[in-house]
Amino acid sequence: MIPPVPDAALVDKVVVANHILYRQGVVDSFGHVSARHAKSRDHFLLARNMAPALVRRQDILTFDLDGNAIDAHGRRVYLERFIHGEIYRARPDVHSVVHSHSPSVIPFGATRQPLQPIFHMCGFIGEGTGLFEIRDVAGDTDMLVSTNALGVALAVALGTRSAVLMRGHGSTVVGASVEQAVYRAVYTEVNAKLQMQAIGLGKVVYLSAGEAAKAAATNETQVPRAWELWQREVGPLE
Amino acid sequence: MIPPVPDAALVDKVVVANHILYRQGVVDSFGHVSARHAKSRDHFLLARNMAPALVRRQDILTFDLDGNAIDAHGRRVYLERFIHGEIYRARPDVHSVVHSHSPSVIPFGATRQPLQPIFHMCGFIGEGTGLFEIRDVAGDTDMLVSTNALGVALAVALGTRSAVLMRGHGSTVVGASVEQAVYRAVYTEVNAKLQMQAIGLGKVVYLSAGEAAKAAATNETQVPRAWELWQREVGPLE
Amino acid sequence: MIPPVPDAALVDKVVVANHILYRQGVVDSFGHVSARHAKSRDHFLLARNMAPALVRRQDILTFDLDGNAIDAHGRRVYLERFIHGEIYRARPDVHSVVHSHSPSVIPFGATRQPLQPIFHMCGFIGEGTGLFEIRDVAGDTDMLVSTNALGVALAVALGTRSAVLMRGHGSTVVGASVEQAVYRAVYTEVNAKLQMQAIGLGKVVYLSAGEAAKAAATNETQVPRAWELWQREVGPLE
Amino acid sequence: MIPPVPDAALVDKVVVANHILYRQGVVDSFGHVSARHAKSRDHFLLARNMAPALVRRQDILTFDLDGNAIDAHGRRVYLERFIHGEIYRARPDVHSVVHSHSPSVIPFGATRQPLQPIFHMCGFIGEGTGLFEIRDVAGDTDMLVSTNALGVALAVALGTRSAVLMRGHGSTVVGASVEQAVYRAVYTEVNAKLQMQAIGLGKVVYLSAGEAAKAAATNETQVPRAWELWQREVGPLE
Repeated sequence: MIPPVPDAALVDKVVVANHILYRQGVVDSFGHVSARHAKSRDHFLLARNMAPALVRRQDILTFDLDGNAIDAHGRRVYLERFIHGEIYRARPDVHSVVHSHSPSVIPFGATRQPLQPIFHMCGFIGEGTGLFEIRDVAGDTDMLVSTNALGVALAVALGTRSAVLMRGHGSTVVGASVEQAVYRAVYTEVNAKLQMQAIGLGKVVYLSAGEAAKAAATNETQVPRAWELWQREVGPLE
Repeated sequence: MIPPVPDAALVDKVVVANHILYRQGVVDSFGHVSARHAKSRDHFLLARNMAPALVRRQDILTFDLDGNAIDAHGRRVYLERFIHGEIYRARPDVHSVVHSHSPSVIPFGATRQPLQPIFHMCGFIGEGTGLFEIRDVAGDTDMLVSTNALGVALAVALGTRSAVLMRGHGSTVVGASVEQAVYRAVYTEVNAKLQMQAIGLGKVVYLSAGEAAKAAATNETQVPRAWELWQREVGPLE
Repeated sequence: MIPPVPDAALVDKVVVANHILYRQGVVDSFGHVSARHAKSRDHFLLARNMAPALVRRQDILTFDLDGNAIDAHGRRVYLERFIHGEIYRARPDVHSVVHSHSPSVIPFGATRQPLQPIFHMCGFIGEGTGLFEIRDVAGDTDMLVSTNALGVALAVALGTRSAVLMRGHGSTVVGASVEQAVYRAVYTEVNAKLQMQAIGLGKVVYLSAGEAAKAAATNETQVPRAWELWQREVGPLE
Repeated sequence: MIPPVPDAALVDKVVVANHILYRQGVVDSFGHVSARHAKSRDHFLLARNMAPALVRRQDILTFDLDGNAIDAHGRRVYLERFIHGEIYRARPDVHSVVHSHSPSVIPFGATRQPLQPIFHMCGFIGEGTGLFEIRDVAGDTDMLVSTNALGVALAVALGTRSAVLMRGHGSTVVGASVEQAVYRAVYTEVNAKLQMQAIGLGKVVYLSAGEAAKAAATNETQVPRAWELWQREVGPLE
């Protein structure tokens, strides 16, 4: 099935999200952000294989949930597009996915420790983070989620949570909108950095489950404040 | 009672303070700074609900100490305006309040350890920092100081000090002027970062009470030097 | 033997590599990057003695493997050009060498601990890092690899690996192309920073030998994505 | 005695040094750098009381070794000018002094641990760092070296070394030229940061006394390479 042409505003939002994630230090030359197609639940929008900071409108491709691009026209695609497709399949509530090597999160994956919410901005990780240990699933690999089967396993490790750590690799964060997924990706990095520092200082009091849930609900209403600033900082699209 | 129109120079100073706090890394898309109204002790000036970096003159509203905006005209206000009102009510000496999620301060709140003055620039925390544990006051909440009662409790935790840590949330710093509050907010962040590093190195010799008091008194006279630079760096208002 | 005039594109690439390494924080005013001459295996291209950020086309000199510049015309050369010559002599597979004081790597050399691959981006250090202890080779020195004999000893410490730590000094990273050597130098710094943080958090699970080898093979194909961004960021050559 | 008008090139160099130290993160709004008068050993050049980043030619004043400005014409002077005068008096070999609150150095002063040279760039601290404990000299103070007597005590703590830590305050670094003092101030900060990280990793192998002395001698010849870059980065004087 060929989905309708993607909404131009959504395409632009995905481009802006790429630029924001670079400016905020969540992605470097690697990492990617997608949005579920607004008019076809079985498709998603994702850039061709390139550095997020350089993505333009014409670089956004449409993929089906199996990870096939319908309009690549020979352009290279990300090796790990299966992260996106399989999470959209498993999680109807998710409309945007950010995969990154967000730096402060790596040490948590490498030591197999979950993130826990250190302040109200990160109530969305109140259920903790999943851990994807690719070695348990597939033995020695190149660490990449480069097949549908690995994508399925990642989605299982994510479960109903907002974020999953990928040992020896990075992390993946999801949201109900592009703005929410980007917000969560930015503050997952912040939480990791602060949690690491707090562990070095003493016994940490994390948000309780109740606090986290309530903080997450309130903070949802404040996401546009951050988005407005971040969008301004990356400037208008060419 | 309707207070007089705020002094234009004070409005400008609040705008500049917003920009400085963003540039200095004290606030990100969140956090806010207020000034007590120069002609009415029962009112204060605070931006509408928006990212500090984007605040302009026309975004500064006037509030009474209960947190009611008298000139919002439908614009959204900060959920935590009660921080400001209740501190102005409790502390006649305070003329400016900065609330932030200043990053290095978060681990101290999360581990319930006070800041202590590690160098003369931070003599103003010679009395240590208060700790606001919202859980003790109100059980499971969204962590926000979103009512007058919570604002009162925060003001109690602040006491006569310059700064109060808010577990799982951030911190609030006060001053006798906008310049002083901004100076203190910037150097509270610096102190937290250096204190964390020093704790990792060995036994820390903090300023004694006498040293802190004397350093604070002297440093007060040097605040304009920092303000001049910071103001230059954020540039003239549009 | 006088080698042919170097290929202009390779000269430009060495200049760009200098600028990228500065922007990425691998070098400061010190450090250098070379490329093996494309038409003479016994020569290499390296800037005259200057800060990498300021290198222009006309500053690139040609050296033989003994470290003699054939076209210096009185210009000062780097004291440690022997690093490059002796590694090119010992390692026919190497076509580019980066020597730096990359900051996060220094503490590993100073504590004589090897880097180990903490995530797939650094599969190229799967064999660990060599350690060059100049004190064992030459007693008390100024720490510099300022003779051919010291260059030989460094090449021995490097062995067949991608990187060698130099205690009390810095590190040297090699690649099969300028792009690969620059990529490895940038991610050696990233790995060091993250490995340091992970060690502070708990027991670290590094990539296995198999994972590292496979990740390195895959990531090789992605180097152009990083290079495209980095090149864009440093801008066109004058 | 009225000294000759200072050499214009030296005045310019002091201005540039102020700007470099700000850009390199050694000073913020506070801290200062001086040069001994080229034609009168009993005078030195130092800016009026202001943020280093904003210093211009016309802000450079001439002081005698007692800390009296001969050309202030009512302009405010630094409270701690005595640091400079008394070090110039005690150390005929010193021609430039940098006093700062260089951040990574503060934790060493606060825990009363000396810096030790972690890599060859910092051979100049091969003799370690002095420690100035103002409390031992004068009891509870505002921590500032605000009298000639305190300046003398600081110079004693410095001894024949290149740098002295000031507990609860900052540090002071000296050199035989402005370029050397600035180089040393920049790399004192680098050493502190790396030494802190290395201590967290394991047992640190510092440069031996012989290594430090030899490295310092060699590196002296490379200072212009750093200065050329730093000067370029701060741009021409207005």
